[in-house]
Amino acid sequence: MITLTTFRSVPPFAAGYVRDLRVRWALEEAGLPYTLRLIDFEEAALPGYRKEQPFGQIPVLHDGDRVLFETGAILLHLGERHPALLPPAEREQVTMWMFAALNSVEPYLADLAMLAMFHADEAWAGARRPAVEELALKRLDSLDVWLDGRDWLAGSFSVADILMVSVLRLLDSMNLVKRYVRLHAYKTRCTERPAFRKALADQLALYTHQPAAISN
Amino acid sequence: MITLTTFRSVPPFAAGYVRDLRVRWALEEAGLPYTLRLIDFEEAALPGYRKEQPFGQIPVLHDGDRVLFETGAILLHLGERHPALLPPAEREQVTMWMFAALNSVEPYLADLAMLAMFHADEAWAGARRPAVEELALKRLDSLDVWLDGRDWLAGSFSVADILMVSVLRLLDSMNLVKRYVRLHAYKTRCTERPAFRKALADQLALYTHQPAAISN
Repeated sequence: MITLTTFRSVPPFAAGYVRDLRVRWALEEAGLPYTLRLIDFEEAALPGYRKEQPFGQIPVLHDGDRVLFETGAILLHLGERHPALLPPAEREQVTMWMFAALNSVEPYLADLAMLAMFHADEAWAGARRPAVEELALKRLDSLDVWLDGRDWLAGSFSVADILMVSVLRLLDSMNLVKRYVRLHAYKTRCTERPAFRKALADQLALYTHQPAAISN
Repeated sequence: MITLTTFRSVPPFAAGYVRDLRVRWALEEAGLPYTLRLIDFEEAALPGYRKEQPFGQIPVLHDGDRVLFETGAILLHLGERHPALLPPAEREQVTMWMFAALNSVEPYLADLAMLAMFHADEAWAGARRPAVEELALKRLDSLDVWLDGRDWLAGSFSVADILMVSVLRLLDSMNLVKRYVRLHAYKTRCTERPAFRKALADQLALYTHQPAAISN
């Protein structure tokens, strides 16, 4: 019995990008049914929820008697139980790329996305943006080089690809990934997977009450 | 045979804070001898090194025939082999806190540290700082609450504590952690460990050619 905790509603810009999508995608890849537990922002701040999720964030995964937070830890937990998510022989490569997605790529891409989405009209953002964009593009370039001759980050498709592509999607509104031929092809290869499309459609249905409109 | 790759030299402000310290600390806790491989910034950018470390960063760990990058993955690898670093019964809690340190705490603390250390005199930084500091303090506050009644993040001392305290040290020049009684006590508890002091002294000796001056 798997239960995924996420927010009951989110602002329109976030629909399709809420972090439970990473877990939904993994669960779809593994063919694991799950139910949702929906919470409000107010509930997430309460001491009771903080005992499950110390930072008041989503998602949380209940898997039997296990309660897990952090998308990285949740995907590692699922990967260790389902070889379709983490081929055992590639475990070390996969964990390296999971941490790389979350610590060496996401912070730089998130800084740029935040700046472009929420602060574009503020004076400080104009002065700051070139340096932030340069740091983000360096990461994209390194990934593009790594993907030369590779379909996936670590041998087979794995939870590392789920995390990395979820991170790359932070830049969806900016057309930056398309500058990198191999990286763009990799992202498309991942987001065309039926499990991703199902997970995205389900999240969009929850937040927009409309059928999914999917683009790469 | 363990070999740790790091930079041959770094700017003075970085001495004592280079990311190989996380690995040195873990190796000291486990009582594992290791040798250093020292590289220049120029070597880190070369294609040969990028095959070991796709982003041209340090550290890299060679452990027998394994080559690992990302401090999170290196510490997970070491923890799985040495129970002093990761008590097997607490594995899931530890991985949650490893990812939390690197994805839910470090990005916010690093943003603030970068702003204070490298951009304090720039006009944009004055406008931006209150929001960045607020985000960082929220994370410190959440950690302080979690540490109520706990000595370590996950039951026993583990690689999760090594990562979290390494992240907290990003704010060493700012006196912010001291505002949080439990968090400050936790940080002190960790940095007073002989393994941390040995690791720090060794890094400082390499970069400053001087005996270590340690403060909490």
